Amino acid sequence: MVFSEFRPLDEKSLVEYIKATPILSSKLGDKFDDLKIKEVGDGNLNFVFIVVNDSGSFVIKQALPYIRCIGESWPMTKERAYFEALVLKEHGRLCPEHVPEVYHFDRTMSLIGMRYLEPPHIILRKGLIAGTEYPLLAEHMSEYMAKTLFFTSLLYLTTTEHKRSVAEFCGNVELCRLTEQVVFSDPYKVSQYNHWTSPYLDRDAEAVREDNVLKVEVAELKSKFCERTQALVHGDLHTGSIMVTHDSTQVIDPEFAFYGPMGFDIGAFIGNLILAFFAQDGHADQVNDRKAYKEWILKTIDDTWTLFYKKFTVLWDAHKDGPGEAYLPGIYNNPELQKLIQAKYMEDLFHDTLGFGSAKMIRRIVGVAHVEDFESIKDAGRRADCERQALEFAKMLLKERRKFKAITEVVSAIKQLQT
Amino acid sequence: MVFSEFRPLDEKSLVEYIKATPILSSKLGDKFDDLKIKEVGDGNLNFVFIVVNDSGSFVIKQALPYIRCIGESWPMTKERAYFEALVLKEHGRLCPEHVPEVYHFDRTMSLIGMRYLEPPHIILRKGLIAGTEYPLLAEHMSEYMAKTLFFTSLLYLTTTEHKRSVAEFCGNVELCRLTEQVVFSDPYKVSQYNHWTSPYLDRDAEAVREDNVLKVEVAELKSKFCERTQALVHGDLHTGSIMVTHDSTQVIDPEFAFYGPMGFDIGAFIGNLILAFFAQDGHADQVNDRKAYKEWILKTIDDTWTLFYKKFTVLWDAHKDGPGEAYLPGIYNNPELQKLIQAKYMEDLFHDTLGFGSAKMIRRIVGVAHVEDFESIKDAGRRADCERQALEFAKMLLKERRKFKAITEVVSAIKQLQT
Repeated sequence: MVFSEFRPLDEKSLVEYIKATPILSSKLGDKFDDLKIKEVGDGNLNFVFIVVNDSGSFVIKQALPYIRCIGESWPMTKERAYFEALVLKEHGRLCPEHVPEVYHFDRTMSLIGMRYLEPPHIILRKGLIAGTEYPLLAEHMSEYMAKTLFFTSLLYLTTTEHKRSVAEFCGNVELCRLTEQVVFSDPYKVSQYNHWTSPYLDRDAEAVREDNVLKVEVAELKSKFCERTQALVHGDLHTGSIMVTHDSTQVIDPEFAFYGPMGFDIGAFIGNLILAFFAQDGHADQVNDRKAYKEWILKTIDDTWTLFYKKFTVLWDAHKDGPGEAYLPGIYNNPELQKLIQAKYMEDLFHDTLGFGSAKMIRRIVGVAHVEDFESIKDAGRRADCERQALEFAKMLLKERRKFKAITEVVSAIKQLQT
Repeated sequence: MVFSEFRPLDEKSLVEYIKATPILSSKLGDKFDDLKIKEVGDGNLNFVFIVVNDSGSFVIKQALPYIRCIGESWPMTKERAYFEALVLKEHGRLCPEHVPEVYHFDRTMSLIGMRYLEPPHIILRKGLIAGTEYPLLAEHMSEYMAKTLFFTSLLYLTTTEHKRSVAEFCGNVELCRLTEQVVFSDPYKVSQYNHWTSPYLDRDAEAVREDNVLKVEVAELKSKFCERTQALVHGDLHTGSIMVTHDSTQVIDPEFAFYGPMGFDIGAFIGNLILAFFAQDGHADQVNDRKAYKEWILKTIDDTWTLFYKKFTVLWDAHKDGPGEAYLPGIYNNPELQKLIQAKYMEDLFHDTLGFGSAKMIRRIVGVAHVEDFESIKDAGRRADCERQALEFAKMLLKERRKFKAITEVVSAIKQLQT
């Protein structure tokens, strides 16, 4: 241990820390004269340092005991770094292709040393704003979600393993509470942290707060979020938690991870793709009308669920005689029955996905934390038009989600809004 | 600590133990010459000693590291005594009228010292077999269930308290696994432990194992049992876990307690009342045709749910501005909305109750552990007739539960079978 108690690092003390930590120091060939350190934490919560020299590189992520974007007035346990490291390792074991490797974890310092995702890796959200296509995105994300969700659920785990892991992640309660507040509560009531494109959306925000049917549905989703320990979910799987290149997709920042409903992850990803879709009209110009790009986003939404469905059920079939205790082979012992239970499970998961995805969209328009997809549209009136369309779609989808039977129907519903 | 490591007590070593334990010894006025000790553990799992003298009394319950009724071939953690003591204290705090007081707990010895429920207290199941009416039963049980379930749910607890308690009770995993096996798994597959009134019900047991629709529904219930941390449930709330007199109702044996779906408790109680109902024809004779008694059982079923509904929603209304984080007052802020969310919550709970109640009935007829209600019917053919009727009703109710909107409809459906 370099420091015996927690202290926030700066670029100078970080060098001292690295020198005293062999696993990190060796990544740099134990050379420090050509060291480049850059603080890039543009997220809401943490310090992130990129450390590079000619011999190697890594990222240092340090959690602070408050929410960085709001400041010390909103305290937040730095123990979240412990859960983040735990999940990076667990999800990394299950899907090493799409999770950066952890080199080092220091609980006292709430500090993780991990792979530096070198350029041209960029945050997916920025790529979506720029209008860049990622042909492997749906393939990769469906792979990541299928593996991490399947293998941490009772479809694969024994009850004993499941309850042990559930108990451990109950410790990440502060981050769960933050999600409860910003996703399921604040957007539906008057809250000092809420904001929106005013005055354009004043009436829209009010309508959300006065929509009884919507609030009943949100309560059901919140109850699942708080009470259903279906799998070890990432917990914050929006397009800002994914780094991409043309060939690579890497999921980062799982500090909100806990045992929750699978649909919360799948919905976060798909919901944020839908937000990206509705933001495109705000980015269109005479050079690029974004029409082709919008088609690509819709195709990616379709492919993501379709491929997820396929990969997840393939894993299920492959492990149906495995350790998982949800559906014992002695009971679910014929192909017809196997089909029935999968169809039911996947339909429920689809509806959860649409519900959580919608809730994640709504909160990004009228809640505390907005998305760059919309924020980067300079003209407020134009931005509000995009946001309103997204908001109306999300409200409809949340309320009517059980009527949708296939992802193609969701995509069609989005398209209809555009004509 | 009297013994530094676990040992099963007999009547002799028990005296030694009591003498060395002031809290127990003092209950007896520290006198041991007139001591009467009787082992009465007729349950499936533990030793139970009644200890009485002229000055006082108590019960000593000791868990053994295996299931008593099956023997050392079926090991079962004695740590269950820890969870039992924990729940007795917690439920006792919430509803002291209907939970016996704990005087002493010794984790090393897996031993609980608690109130002796003196005669004429008897096990409710025996009273139901004898045809005894308990006019306060529905009132008392609805009170117990409303209080213990409401106050341990997110309707009253903060997320922080809830997750802390969920994590603790994840430790009772071995008992949860036992329930999973005997309630949700074994009855639906070939298992060495299953038995039934053979040969009469051979075909019926086979039909259960071959019923795809039933097995899909049971999977959904099992998933809720394993994954939904709705409240701190008793976990084994059948009519053998309740002691009664004309005026008193006391809930015992919560060693299966964990954070699970509320309907598992309410269903266990109501399901076992329905079993008692269907057993009555086997107990009818020329002196007593049991017709009036059957009416009383149906009335008790109706009253139990009706009173539970009332008491539970009264608690909810009283604490709607309290610490519970499920429905924040800032969001669910008008009477119409409050009505909507309660109606939805209670309808879901009703359907869970019917589902779990049915599953508990089925397992008592074709699974490992049967009920004295039926077992005490000497004539096997007559017994099988009663059991078949209960089994058919349970299968129907489990599959069709979502069509039932009120407890009166359930009671009517039972009555129709009798004509």
